[in-house]
Amino acid sequence: MDSRPSPAPAAPGAPLSYEQSGVVYELIDPLKVAAQRAAAATAVNLAAHGFSEVKASRGESAYVVDVGPFYLASIVECLGSKALVADEMQRLTGHSWYAGIAQDTIAMAINDLVTVGATPLVVQAYWAAGGSEWFTDAERAGTLVAGWKAACDTCGVAWGGGETPALAGIVAEGRIDLAASCTGIVSPKTRLSLGDALVPGDAIVLLAASGIHANGLSLARKLAERLPQGYLTPIAPGLAYGEALLAPTPLYSPVTEALARAGITPHYCANITGHGWRKLLRHPGSFTYRIERLPEVPAVLQFIQQQAQMSDEDAYGTLNMGAGFAIFVAAADAERTVEVARQAGVAALVAGRVEAGAKQLLIEPLGLVFGSDALQLR
Amino acid sequence: MDSRPSPAPAAPGAPLSYEQSGVVYELIDPLKVAAQRAAAATAVNLAAHGFSEVKASRGESAYVVDVGPFYLASIVECLGSKALVADEMQRLTGHSWYAGIAQDTIAMAINDLVTVGATPLVVQAYWAAGGSEWFTDAERAGTLVAGWKAACDTCGVAWGGGETPALAGIVAEGRIDLAASCTGIVSPKTRLSLGDALVPGDAIVLLAASGIHANGLSLARKLAERLPQGYLTPIAPGLAYGEALLAPTPLYSPVTEALARAGITPHYCANITGHGWRKLLRHPGSFTYRIERLPEVPAVLQFIQQQAQMSDEDAYGTLNMGAGFAIFVAAADAERTVEVARQAGVAALVAGRVEAGAKQLLIEPLGLVFGSDALQLR
Repeated sequence: MDSRPSPAPAAPGAPLSYEQSGVVYELIDPLKVAAQRAAAATAVNLAAHGFSEVKASRGESAYVVDVGPFYLASIVECLGSKALVADEMQRLTGHSWYAGIAQDTIAMAINDLVTVGATPLVVQAYWAAGGSEWFTDAERAGTLVAGWKAACDTCGVAWGGGETPALAGIVAEGRIDLAASCTGIVSPKTRLSLGDALVPGDAIVLLAASGIHANGLSLARKLAERLPQGYLTPIAPGLAYGEALLAPTPLYSPVTEALARAGITPHYCANITGHGWRKLLRHPGSFTYRIERLPEVPAVLQFIQQQAQMSDEDAYGTLNMGAGFAIFVAAADAERTVEVARQAGVAALVAGRVEAGAKQLLIEPLGLVFGSDALQLR
Repeated sequence: MDSRPSPAPAAPGAPLSYEQSGVVYELIDPLKVAAQRAAAATAVNLAAHGFSEVKASRGESAYVVDVGPFYLASIVECLGSKALVADEMQRLTGHSWYAGIAQDTIAMAINDLVTVGATPLVVQAYWAAGGSEWFTDAERAGTLVAGWKAACDTCGVAWGGGETPALAGIVAEGRIDLAASCTGIVSPKTRLSLGDALVPGDAIVLLAASGIHANGLSLARKLAERLPQGYLTPIAPGLAYGEALLAPTPLYSPVTEALARAGITPHYCANITGHGWRKLLRHPGSFTYRIERLPEVPAVLQFIQQQAQMSDEDAYGTLNMGAGFAIFVAAADAERTVEVARQAGVAALVAGRVEAGAKQLLIEPLGLVFGSDALQLR
């Protein structure tokens, strides 16, 4: 389904790489670099309004502007290809999986927005269908609406509105392109967590993932093609592969808001999405991140690693492997951060610490080292 | 290319309706209604943060939240199918038309956001391609980036960032799904223009359109199929149909910002997009809108009306027919509003006035009447 020349199909049983799954980051990156440079050059426009950007937010997960009494944070995020799994599972099971897909889409935006210390306030829906008839499946449309509302309620945001275009000829027939934009504020301004405060000795707290979330789905879909029972392959008693893939992404804003109420200000946050644990290297400074304890790996990610014959390096460098979100806090706040997260309904653990030293991520239980060149986002 | 069963092809020379062009609003609307209801029910979530929505913004072109010192406005908007015209014209002419397409996309968001009185501050880009290779056409990608930046500069907004996913299987091969989200503030709060101030006697000022903008493109593309020379059909000396269609949508925020600096607060604004002049009925109140003077109709819209054999009622009820944006101001401010717009580079005219009476739009020079049932947005 990828539009570039298809890679040679992997032989059954052969390892499956992310390249084979059809996403070629090298082809996107030159445009990304050009866009980032052009975008950075527009920051001066804010001066005419008496405002300024928070420059450290360039290259971070949400863009931040100083509007005086507080900071304004905004973002737009795409679901990606997870909806294709929902479509196939609806065909196989006869019911809609779009309530979870709605939560996934909002999670992509909310979980990025909160990394900078923002309280999300408004979500806008972008639902671009391949044709008007997408909306005639009343159950599917209803679950999308209900799931979207439920996720907004969980995050304490207002669903402001959105767009529901029918884009025949642009969006593929029978498909939907889902995205969410989110606007929030950082208030008080001391909640800003762009990383200035990160210091050696800080603890790394990892919030639990529910499954694959919405990153790595191209690989997961490619793998489904190789399984004799496809998405219906049981990966645990009573749990099919497709169902496990569709576990909705947790919404982490209840945790970050609870931390604020508890008086804990993270020194930095990283949403673990594409590039897996390499996202722990996101902070622009030079630190060594030492991981001593690993979270439990969701069954679906264990299954993918095993079936795709991925090395630990590939798996942890691509997938979340049980860590959905990283919060870097003062060591003295570490255990309380875990407790606050648990009370907000999200399992967490103190996984390691920040140290002075070369920029690298050491995952000690697995003997893995990711160097400073493992993540190029800026 | 539409995914529902194709309508019977219109005989050459037969009138062409919007239904035949493949967009069936009736199929989308039940979902829209359900989504609007669910969205409205999330407003209460803002109370936990000490904020509240501005309820009158529900059903308007941008969503507004009262965050204390000012109002926050946000929106996400889709370009629609205009990129398909750019793709075909690139094939025919050998060069990229994406600089204008970028401006169109931003205009869709900015021109909606400013209707509520907001100053746009941040734009986020949503560029979802059918595959990684979309981005390898360096000229096309470069014009998209350059056009996006230029539009941000014109509007005085910061380009915050965005998403450039490759969505093979969801976005059609070789295509791109373009959208923009925009966040702004209404400051001072007295700039809020949700319509409370609209009264009989107010003037209706229309800002000039540059062409078809980004609404009515399904019809325009269908028409191209019927023309022997297609998009290369000359519609005026040296002007091909496709080129005329691709005239970028004006950015109206320089006008609304200039009005604010001039001390003119619109009583209401309507961005003339889908539903053409019926959008003049957007205000929820009961007023009669009497139009006595018409703006010049861009050549491309004259051509479409003629070739598609559209009645004036169809043309003015579907297309902008030269009016890109309506500003309702106190009669005493009308001429000055026109002058401020002209100084900001946008032609304008005082086209008519608001009167007490049944909700209807009277376009006197054409003898047209659109009643209260002509526009159903809420």
